[in-house]
Amino acid sequence: MEFKKEFTAGIIIIGNEILSGRTVDKNTSFIATWLNKKGINVEEVRIIPDKEQVIVDTVNELRNKFAYVFTTGGIGPTHDDITSESISKVFSQKYQYHQEAYKLLEDYYKNQDFNEGRKKMAKMPEYAKLIPNPKTLAAGFYIENVFVLPGVPSILQAMVPYLDKVIISGKEILSVSIDSGLRESLLAESLSKVQNKYPSVDIGSYPYFNKKAGTILILRSIDKEIIKLCEIDIKNIIKKFSKK
Amino acid sequence: MEFKKEFTAGIIIIGNEILSGRTVDKNTSFIATWLNKKGINVEEVRIIPDKEQVIVDTVNELRNKFAYVFTTGGIGPTHDDITSESISKVFSQKYQYHQEAYKLLEDYYKNQDFNEGRKKMAKMPEYAKLIPNPKTLAAGFYIENVFVLPGVPSILQAMVPYLDKVIISGKEILSVSIDSGLRESLLAESLSKVQNKYPSVDIGSYPYFNKKAGTILILRSIDKEIIKLCEIDIKNIIKKFSKK
Repeated sequence: MEFKKEFTAGIIIIGNEILSGRTVDKNTSFIATWLNKKGINVEEVRIIPDKEQVIVDTVNELRNKFAYVFTTGGIGPTHDDITSESISKVFSQKYQYHQEAYKLLEDYYKNQDFNEGRKKMAKMPEYAKLIPNPKTLAAGFYIENVFVLPGVPSILQAMVPYLDKVIISGKEILSVSIDSGLRESLLAESLSKVQNKYPSVDIGSYPYFNKKAGTILILRSIDKEIIKLCEIDIKNIIKKFSKK
Repeated sequence: MEFKKEFTAGIIIIGNEILSGRTVDKNTSFIATWLNKKGINVEEVRIIPDKEQVIVDTVNELRNKFAYVFTTGGIGPTHDDITSESISKVFSQKYQYHQEAYKLLEDYYKNQDFNEGRKKMAKMPEYAKLIPNPKTLAAGFYIENVFVLPGVPSILQAMVPYLDKVIISGKEILSVSIDSGLRESLLAESLSKVQNKYPSVDIGSYPYFNKKAGTILILRSIDKEIIKLCEIDIKNIIKKFSKK
């Protein structure tokens, strides 16, 4: 499957905690699943450290390559949260308090110390448009095709639905999963033939080795009829090999 | 923390199943944790699709940038397994049967059909050095600073220890984890000061929002004494704020 540029996305995971191995990234899976329903294909993910020049270069590279870029992480109150300031540099915009974001936080912390760290979460590039945060109120934002989200999965997941109207959808990328119960190496040659027969379907083959070894086959396509035909062919192959 | 190039690594996760959101990548976390013990810092991770030109370009870019590059995925028997052939192109080497790898598989399948798919797993770049696979016998390989591993986590984890002697270690990257029990925004200013006091320690701040909101602080350094002093300072800050 090849996608027109307008239906492509890149994801940038910003955070030393993923690179050090301490944390397993779950945001890619959530964002990609949501985008697939909108017909947007994630073409590349990069996991990078909290370093300004790396953030600026990576965002610049991917925002030219793909229709949409999503960043996660680095928009909190602490010294290692440098994403918002880096994005300001990407777009050569002033890094300053966003009035609406500031007001929201001021209300939220009205009975507590509204300290510098808390205020910092309202600092954004000058022309940022807010992405509401129903959980902890510190907003994300977007500029042009770059969407800046937090790293905490539960908060990110509560914010992403607000972008449903901003993203221009294509045809949903359909997906069919078949557990063959058979070793991948047994199926390989037949699968090649099916893949050649249906070039508009992506056939992925994913072996597992639990109590019994087997293979999950994943078909992906935007064409409902073709994916159905491909599924029938594959199920026939599995039937044939299972009898042996 | 800045690392000399000789103690840096990049990881390339090859596979549509991660980009589509179906599978959460666990190999990054395993490889990074293993490398940290050897004093090697993972500077970047890229997740890319099963597309030859993308694989070739990405491997070339990262193998020049970092001391070590690890790829995972795409070395199985099926049509979507194109990593080994792509790596042959990276090094302009013939893509052919590796005698030892072939022999291992031939023995393994001696009572079964040793079909094309199974043979394919012995095809590698001409001068590949094997990485043994004690689980399913299909070997990984390396050339220069590029290490080619499978995508199935249980198999990858069984193979990585064979590389212990191949990687040239630096000083172990130590890590201390402190659960502050306090909101990140409360600690931000004090943490900034501690970070400035100990530039050789990376202080990461990771909020969580479960039943109670809090923050995990992760200190990373190769200096045992400095990390201890930094830990004491941070614990004093936490004590101060907890009393309030």
